[in-house]
Amino acid sequence: MNAYTHLEARFKRMNLVRDAIAMLEWDAAAMMPDGGSDARADQLAALKLVVHEQATSPALAEFLDAAGEGQGLDAWQRSNLREMKRSFVHATALPADLVEAQSRAVSTCEMRWRTARKENDFKGLLPDLQRVLDLAREEAQIKAQKFGCSLYDALLDAYEPGGKSAAIDAIFADLATFLPGFIDAALERQARKPAAIPFDGPFPAATQTKLAAELMAAVGFDFAHGRLDTSHHPFCGGVPDDVRLTTRWDEADFAKGLMGVMHETGHAMYERGLPLKWRHQPVGFARGMSVHESQSLLVEMQAARSDAFLAYLAPKAAAAFGKSGPAWTVENFARVYRRVQRGLIRVDADEATYPAHVILRYRLERAMIEGRLALRDLPGAWNDGMRELVGTVPPDDRDGCLQDIHWPGGAWGYFPTYTLGAMTAAQLFDAAKRADPNIVPSIGKGDFAPLMAWLRKNVHEQGSHLDTDALLVKATGKTLDAEIFKAHLKARYLDA
Amino acid sequence: MNAYTHLEARFKRMNLVRDAIAMLEWDAAAMMPDGGSDARADQLAALKLVVHEQATSPALAEFLDAAGEGQGLDAWQRSNLREMKRSFVHATALPADLVEAQSRAVSTCEMRWRTARKENDFKGLLPDLQRVLDLAREEAQIKAQKFGCSLYDALLDAYEPGGKSAAIDAIFADLATFLPGFIDAALERQARKPAAIPFDGPFPAATQTKLAAELMAAVGFDFAHGRLDTSHHPFCGGVPDDVRLTTRWDEADFAKGLMGVMHETGHAMYERGLPLKWRHQPVGFARGMSVHESQSLLVEMQAARSDAFLAYLAPKAAAAFGKSGPAWTVENFARVYRRVQRGLIRVDADEATYPAHVILRYRLERAMIEGRLALRDLPGAWNDGMRELVGTVPPDDRDGCLQDIHWPGGAWGYFPTYTLGAMTAAQLFDAAKRADPNIVPSIGKGDFAPLMAWLRKNVHEQGSHLDTDALLVKATGKTLDAEIFKAHLKARYLDA
Repeated sequence: MNAYTHLEARFKRMNLVRDAIAMLEWDAAAMMPDGGSDARADQLAALKLVVHEQATSPALAEFLDAAGEGQGLDAWQRSNLREMKRSFVHATALPADLVEAQSRAVSTCEMRWRTARKENDFKGLLPDLQRVLDLAREEAQIKAQKFGCSLYDALLDAYEPGGKSAAIDAIFADLATFLPGFIDAALERQARKPAAIPFDGPFPAATQTKLAAELMAAVGFDFAHGRLDTSHHPFCGGVPDDVRLTTRWDEADFAKGLMGVMHETGHAMYERGLPLKWRHQPVGFARGMSVHESQSLLVEMQAARSDAFLAYLAPKAAAAFGKSGPAWTVENFARVYRRVQRGLIRVDADEATYPAHVILRYRLERAMIEGRLALRDLPGAWNDGMRELVGTVPPDDRDGCLQDIHWPGGAWGYFPTYTLGAMTAAQLFDAAKRADPNIVPSIGKGDFAPLMAWLRKNVHEQGSHLDTDALLVKATGKTLDAEIFKAHLKARYLDA
Repeated sequence: MNAYTHLEARFKRMNLVRDAIAMLEWDAAAMMPDGGSDARADQLAALKLVVHEQATSPALAEFLDAAGEGQGLDAWQRSNLREMKRSFVHATALPADLVEAQSRAVSTCEMRWRTARKENDFKGLLPDLQRVLDLAREEAQIKAQKFGCSLYDALLDAYEPGGKSAAIDAIFADLATFLPGFIDAALERQARKPAAIPFDGPFPAATQTKLAAELMAAVGFDFAHGRLDTSHHPFCGGVPDDVRLTTRWDEADFAKGLMGVMHETGHAMYERGLPLKWRHQPVGFARGMSVHESQSLLVEMQAARSDAFLAYLAPKAAAAFGKSGPAWTVENFARVYRRVQRGLIRVDADEATYPAHVILRYRLERAMIEGRLALRDLPGAWNDGMRELVGTVPPDDRDGCLQDIHWPGGAWGYFPTYTLGAMTAAQLFDAAKRADPNIVPSIGKGDFAPLMAWLRKNVHEQGSHLDTDALLVKATGKTLDAEIFKAHLKARYLDA
């Protein structure tokens, strides 16, 4: 065995333990009785300690130094080595006591946040959130120095490998200019058309489950390699060969849950389509959060809210629930699924206003990490930003700066990936449709196979071989281009 | 930290990884889609390698040598140290290549066995089973030398710590003398009484699940710390704070599945009742397979098939399924649940003939391990033993010596614990009833709390502090006494 093959063996071993963690985290959300939570926390901590020891082992450093030159590595092996080094650099960048302090601070702050949000108590959360922010800034300083990048980019890199705020700035500035006028125009046009008619429930969870499973199968989800269950927060968990999706059923309204399942199925198809040959190796993993989100939003926003798919869905849903009438027409499905609203809550936002929520968060978290915004000034800055970007101001912090778990949870630098993902989705779908004119007609028949064939070849099977920019260039001919996303929004919300 | 506290920390860490393995094994049986099996096998192998490295670490040997003297250990800590040493001795007794060879041979043989059983092909299984037997004999020789015991006891010790075949011989000889005449008499008496009337199904799985959950709650199962699901082979899995039971529903017959749930609930109550203070430490574990089986059989055989409980169960089951008529009387429940039969299959055997099946397997496996019986002569020896002990001879090996997975699966030395467990159950229930006269009347009202209070104090909370004999002496005043089990059988099957 040479240094490189040693590395492959060690990463496989470590990533199998990570896979075990992923399965246990799914179980904790979907299956575990409440009384099992302490035991599960102990199990996960023990496994994470194993991974940490493996990820930071001095032997790994030696093999990483020795591997590469003169070992006749092919292009994928070289990419794998690059990703191994990235993994090692991230794993070893921080002193153990900082990691430990972060873990404790986040755990305390998340718990405090649940109460603080309920009680609209930003001041009560402030000390714990300040601690989490201080530690994130400490992390950013250490990593920025080691990686030779800006403070914000040092944090962003954990979610968006190679991501640069300079590029995001340009894209988001363009969007921030475009959105307010666009939202005005979309709302104006919407007001001139008939209002969406609410669906007349109730919708039994069992029927929703059956319909959702049929739609998942239509997208290409293989139930021999995955499951659909319920959890408080929907997510796509498990491992590529055993994907565990979760959702939440609202018996009064099937519409949101159904699209939630389509969203998670997009994530699942990415995981399932990752290159089998590179299973358990870093180069075989999903490229990053923006590409991952692009796959869920491509299925949910681009494909499943298209005219073609809604024409397939509306009669199918009506039949499943045994319903008919004006709410169950294709036209009404389009009105329900494309309703634009100046809302306060990001997770409830529509496709058109969502980027405005994200841009706000990006600006604020970057200012806080760079020390330009004090945490105590966050509520005011939040409300100013909402006025400017979304055109509405929250009446309190509960529905304002307290709404997201990301900052209390220590996920600073994550937010931009949502909108980068939405834009990437538009660009990939645009390229896919041009490459195969059969994609949209097939979606109209509930057959996602042509779309998935294109995605599998151009995205899924690429794993982490290329960086995000190169992946997009290879698949679409150019780097991320805001014009395509804007054209999509205009076509759907202004022209149709 | 002194040597002993180091050991506690290391065993906790290792046993948390074992707990993770237990959860993933439950998932594989109860939740996992078929296509996940290869990925799961890899995950489990990776975690087992972690445990193996932790269990055999040279540092552990040093701490074990250093711990004990002069560290002011209390009685439970001394017991814990004793169990740590037992764990280490078992983990390090065998050379790595033997363990590896066993793992491969068992894996091949189990797969071959599934076909061989179906095709009644003992000769076809012979080479693979011979390999497993040869390796088991090699294990026995190495361990016998290290532990200073007989070949059979060296294997038995892994399932029944401290178990001795000399003691089992005496008990089983007594039973083997008693059983043939007893079975004759029980069958004779049964023939003079009305035949059991089969229940008139179908019995929807959902109704069976609901009824089973109610009975589990009656026994004391806490659904905040466990679940009931389905799997191909019912078992009690998970961890003490999150017990995962499984069963299998037969919609044509609820009777067997229901008692299966009671059986697994007995196992579950033992796990749940293990001393919280010693969670993750060897002294906090269940004492061994015979005590574990005693807890399942105490609930299933002693309590749930008692007159008192059947009088509670019959009307409850009739109401659950919306049934009435002669099959649904308490008398008929007793006939169904206490039917004696000279059957061929151990897992289908009733309480009266089960020990005969076990004694046969004990004699045969011991003879094979000691080299007194060649594997090729097993079918003949099996049939001779069945004639003598059960009073019936299988028409083929499928329902004869090919029926159990234990030997192909490498579990040599396991079988006697089933009957030791049945006898222990009788002895514990006898002592419990004498200690608290309220136990049986309460069971008659579907309230197992008084029984569980006694078991918790006398068995569950004892963990592995005492050895099996001492545990039984402390709880019942004497070591295992065949007379109590025989008296139970006579009272139930001859006198009632």
